[in-house]
Amino acid sequence: MNALLQRLQIDLPLFQGPMTGSDTPQLAAAVSQAGGLGFLGCGMRSPQAMREVAAAVRAATAKPFGMNLFVLEQPTPDAATVQAAIDRLAPLYADLGLPPPEAPARWCEDFHAQFEALLEARPAVASFTFGILTAAQVARLQAVGSTVIGTATTLAEAQAWAAVGADAVCASGMEAGGHRGTFLTPTQPGATGAAPSLADFAASMVGTLPLVAQCAQALSIPVIAAGGIMDGRGIAGALALGAQAVQMGTAFLNCSESAIGPAYREALAHAQATDTRTTRIFSGRPARGIVNRMMQALQADESTVPPYPVQNALTGALRRAAAQAGQADCLSLWAGQGVAQVRPMPAAQLVALLAQEWQQATAPRSTSTIGHQ
Amino acid sequence: MNALLQRLQIDLPLFQGPMTGSDTPQLAAAVSQAGGLGFLGCGMRSPQAMREVAAAVRAATAKPFGMNLFVLEQPTPDAATVQAAIDRLAPLYADLGLPPPEAPARWCEDFHAQFEALLEARPAVASFTFGILTAAQVARLQAVGSTVIGTATTLAEAQAWAAVGADAVCASGMEAGGHRGTFLTPTQPGATGAAPSLADFAASMVGTLPLVAQCAQALSIPVIAAGGIMDGRGIAGALALGAQAVQMGTAFLNCSESAIGPAYREALAHAQATDTRTTRIFSGRPARGIVNRMMQALQADESTVPPYPVQNALTGALRRAAAQAGQADCLSLWAGQGVAQVRPMPAAQLVALLAQEWQQATAPRSTSTIGHQ
Repeated sequence: MNALLQRLQIDLPLFQGPMTGSDTPQLAAAVSQAGGLGFLGCGMRSPQAMREVAAAVRAATAKPFGMNLFVLEQPTPDAATVQAAIDRLAPLYADLGLPPPEAPARWCEDFHAQFEALLEARPAVASFTFGILTAAQVARLQAVGSTVIGTATTLAEAQAWAAVGADAVCASGMEAGGHRGTFLTPTQPGATGAAPSLADFAASMVGTLPLVAQCAQALSIPVIAAGGIMDGRGIAGALALGAQAVQMGTAFLNCSESAIGPAYREALAHAQATDTRTTRIFSGRPARGIVNRMMQALQADESTVPPYPVQNALTGALRRAAAQAGQADCLSLWAGQGVAQVRPMPAAQLVALLAQEWQQATAPRSTSTIGHQ
Repeated sequence: MNALLQRLQIDLPLFQGPMTGSDTPQLAAAVSQAGGLGFLGCGMRSPQAMREVAAAVRAATAKPFGMNLFVLEQPTPDAATVQAAIDRLAPLYADLGLPPPEAPARWCEDFHAQFEALLEARPAVASFTFGILTAAQVARLQAVGSTVIGTATTLAEAQAWAAVGADAVCASGMEAGGHRGTFLTPTQPGATGAAPSLADFAASMVGTLPLVAQCAQALSIPVIAAGGIMDGRGIAGALALGAQAVQMGTAFLNCSESAIGPAYREALAHAQATDTRTTRIFSGRPARGIVNRMMQALQADESTVPPYPVQNALTGALRRAAAQAGQADCLSLWAGQGVAQVRPMPAAQLVALLAQEWQQATAPRSTSTIGHQ
């Protein structure tokens, strides 16, 4: 048992990836109860909703779990930008018999209120993406007993998290489903605090294998590997690269306990690795999902849609309506490059299967390697 | 020792990646002599040059080695396409004091003549990229004793190679340096024999980790992992994913025996993972290299430059002149996402170091894993 598992008091080096909008307290509790670490993606949850889901996990299991937030300030887009984005989306809304979207009263949850709710919830693990905390924020979480994990898409981002005192880093390779966590600007040297450009997001599309190997070599804190890991081979591979645990989102997306609807499940059941792409047209931040009609229809707007969370808010009603109508065409079908290996089953069963596969992938390999040497 | 190493009679699960234009018989011989499998990238070598380099390796070592070819037909671009490409390049030629390039008598070596030279050379391994052989071609190579390895960037390509009787598949993740080997068309279902479009190349940018795991699970023939592997961790990780060997190109690029010049070596010494990008502006086929002035200057032509090998031939004189002038700005600085871990040293020393690191990465990991279970 490595340092990270000892610290977290969990049996398996296996985190269920936070999936805002798709995860549930039932999913997180099932994974934690089975020996992994369940996660609640709270990026789009209100402080009150955060309290409720944390309580729901605790009612179902006494095991540790994690909560994840987006590090995000409330944006102030100008009216013309918003109207142009609305005009681009109006035809898709009309296709579903809906009026064009309206600018909401606020574009996203208030991060600072979410952060206070997180301190109050005191999850075993508090993880973050889209940005970085200050050292003081990290210390506050640690003071209430939470292990702080930052998401990194590059070695520089991992080093930045280590520098503010994070306890571990989740190295998220470009294979991962959903939003890219990129927050630094490798193509703009010296542009401290600037938002990543499209070129920065492109530069930060590093594969899980080299990213994990580099982070494990360079950092003194534990590394969690994420992106494309779907089975026992993937777990064994990531640990051999130097990770102390893996984080798997897409693998758990089609579990019985996830919140996704039938159209999304159907899409997951038929997708291949070559069917996913990163796009910012759904939300304004590059995210990997299965190609569908909406992604293709709006691809020309890739560089012009307003940044997250503005575009995300403006497409929200459309995606919810499409989900209710069972139309996968207008859903954001977030999924990673391991999507072909998705296995629909209860989460506890999947965790048990993964543990068994991991043992199989490790045992014979070690023998033959040692024998060979 | 696994089936692939037994078949090839080599000690280490470690291939030096073929690097057309950068590898040398000295490099291949050093790797083979040290227990790995050296490779000669022969895509741009004439049949006579192929004979010479194979003889040079054999003069230096009795160990097995590999030769790689591009599966490629002579193109017949129309004059207007060629002239437009020349016009776009003329300013860059002028910057180096050179006249615009001229259309060459032929655009690439004759594959069929190269294939006959390969049969004559009878290397232990004959590997292929950019396309696929017929079952009859595979059988001819096997009849002279060569193990046939096809390059695949997707599971479907790996299955296609297995279907024509290849002995093994090199699963080449999107992290890999140099040209993408993509030859199928995942976004054009049913378009048999069509050339991959830009969308097909984009769809086929699968990371090494999920690609290797998927291929190892689906195929009954051995899988060799390529893309982003630079050290012992990477080797251990790839083998745990199910590969029987790794292929490392970028790792050997800065070895004493490689053919690259000082400007290229200097660029390798300072590049990070976020400094590489895939581009088709140098050659007409997407290839990963370090971003430089020429890549940025021509990026707007990404979708319009003529396909490989036409653009490759038209930029050849420019890149050679830049190399001679020591100007990295106009070179194609092929490198993978592991570039930050490049270690300049003699190849034999690097192979020994990799073997040692691999042993270290494997031994403690197995113990802790088994102990934990």
